[in-house]
Amino acid sequence: MKTKDRIILASRELFNEHGERAITTNHIAAHLGISPGNLYYHFRNKEEIIRCIYKEYENYIVEAFRPLDVENESDLEFLVRYLDGMFQAMWRFRFFYANLTDILTRDKELHQRYLEVHRRMTEVAANNLRLLRDNGTVVVEDKYIEDLAQTLKQIVTCWISYRNAQMLESSITKREIYKGVLRVLITFRGIVSEAAMPEFDRIERQYRELYDSLGGEPT
Amino acid sequence: MKTKDRIILASRELFNEHGERAITTNHIAAHLGISPGNLYYHFRNKEEIIRCIYKEYENYIVEAFRPLDVENESDLEFLVRYLDGMFQAMWRFRFFYANLTDILTRDKELHQRYLEVHRRMTEVAANNLRLLRDNGTVVVEDKYIEDLAQTLKQIVTCWISYRNAQMLESSITKREIYKGVLRVLITFRGIVSEAAMPEFDRIERQYRELYDSLGGEPT
Repeated sequence: MKTKDRIILASRELFNEHGERAITTNHIAAHLGISPGNLYYHFRNKEEIIRCIYKEYENYIVEAFRPLDVENESDLEFLVRYLDGMFQAMWRFRFFYANLTDILTRDKELHQRYLEVHRRMTEVAANNLRLLRDNGTVVVEDKYIEDLAQTLKQIVTCWISYRNAQMLESSITKREIYKGVLRVLITFRGIVSEAAMPEFDRIERQYRELYDSLGGEPT
Repeated sequence: MKTKDRIILASRELFNEHGERAITTNHIAAHLGISPGNLYYHFRNKEEIIRCIYKEYENYIVEAFRPLDVENESDLEFLVRYLDGMFQAMWRFRFFYANLTDILTRDKELHQRYLEVHRRMTEVAANNLRLLRDNGTVVVEDKYIEDLAQTLKQIVTCWISYRNAQMLESSITKREIYKGVLRVLITFRGIVSEAAMPEFDRIERQYRELYDSLGGEPT
């Protein structure tokens, strides 16, 4: 792996583990056993590293939350893909979610990019909801679709910082992230059609089992 | 008004207008036309002022979100009281919601207090949902009540910081806050019973009109 890529990977891991604010470029260099000068040869500052991680994040969500493929994917396969995507995004980039407003207001260029991509992703999500409605999987009036897509996005986007406010000692575990995914599912329940409910229940049970299975994880 | 109360009031207004981070005790003293020494006679530091504002906030939410009074209040009167309470809490204490995780992690005593009160308020909200269910106003299984109460609380708690991340220039207006209340209503829709839906629709229209009527407000 190239030094540049090693720096990006190590930074993401350190940010995730200790919080982005606690980690300096010196910590990153020390962790990799390289000199600060070598790090500065590749990146001007921490913000530049964060932008590179953000690019990974963006590629990840564009791929994970791609539109429903009506030919090759059932509605409920699609739902599972979305839920897994939410879990992975929150877990892999948890430092970003923990500190979103702060990171974005510090870097206007990054903020603009974030807003553009997220506007696009919310449109995709709203279109998906319309397809699910046309297929009879969910029941929802057109005028509420946009707001519902936005609300589901809000629950995911804010989950980690919300949980940090709701715990005295912050410690975001995989179990905590599954709890967030379950919250999305329970909110989504309100619009699932009667016909789709048995299969939806099965999916919900699956995620509840994942959540329960991590019960022994130290928190 | 006593100087101490004037300091608390002015601080809340300045924090709300400019953000808590941007305002120092010197700004507060200058705004009131008193000397920094006079301010320090009443408060040791900014954290102490924030604790006093937090007490006001706590009193406010305990009163606004008191349990459903089954004798004197219809389910939908209760719902309107809750929604108005959410609006007022978010508007009057918007600096607190804008920066919640940060303010709480800076002051462990305040954080403990916050957690205790919010645990109590979520219990009250879950009990209210159970009463609404028993009255036939909402349809929801017991096992989802706790999660739904938590989700509605999350939407409110995170609304302002979420919106700040979703806008390039942060500017929290009354209209923005009503949008948050509407999001709560649309999420709540998923569990409203068929019998209660006509009156629920009327309430939703009311809030939508409030939101629309503020369309000319500068953002």
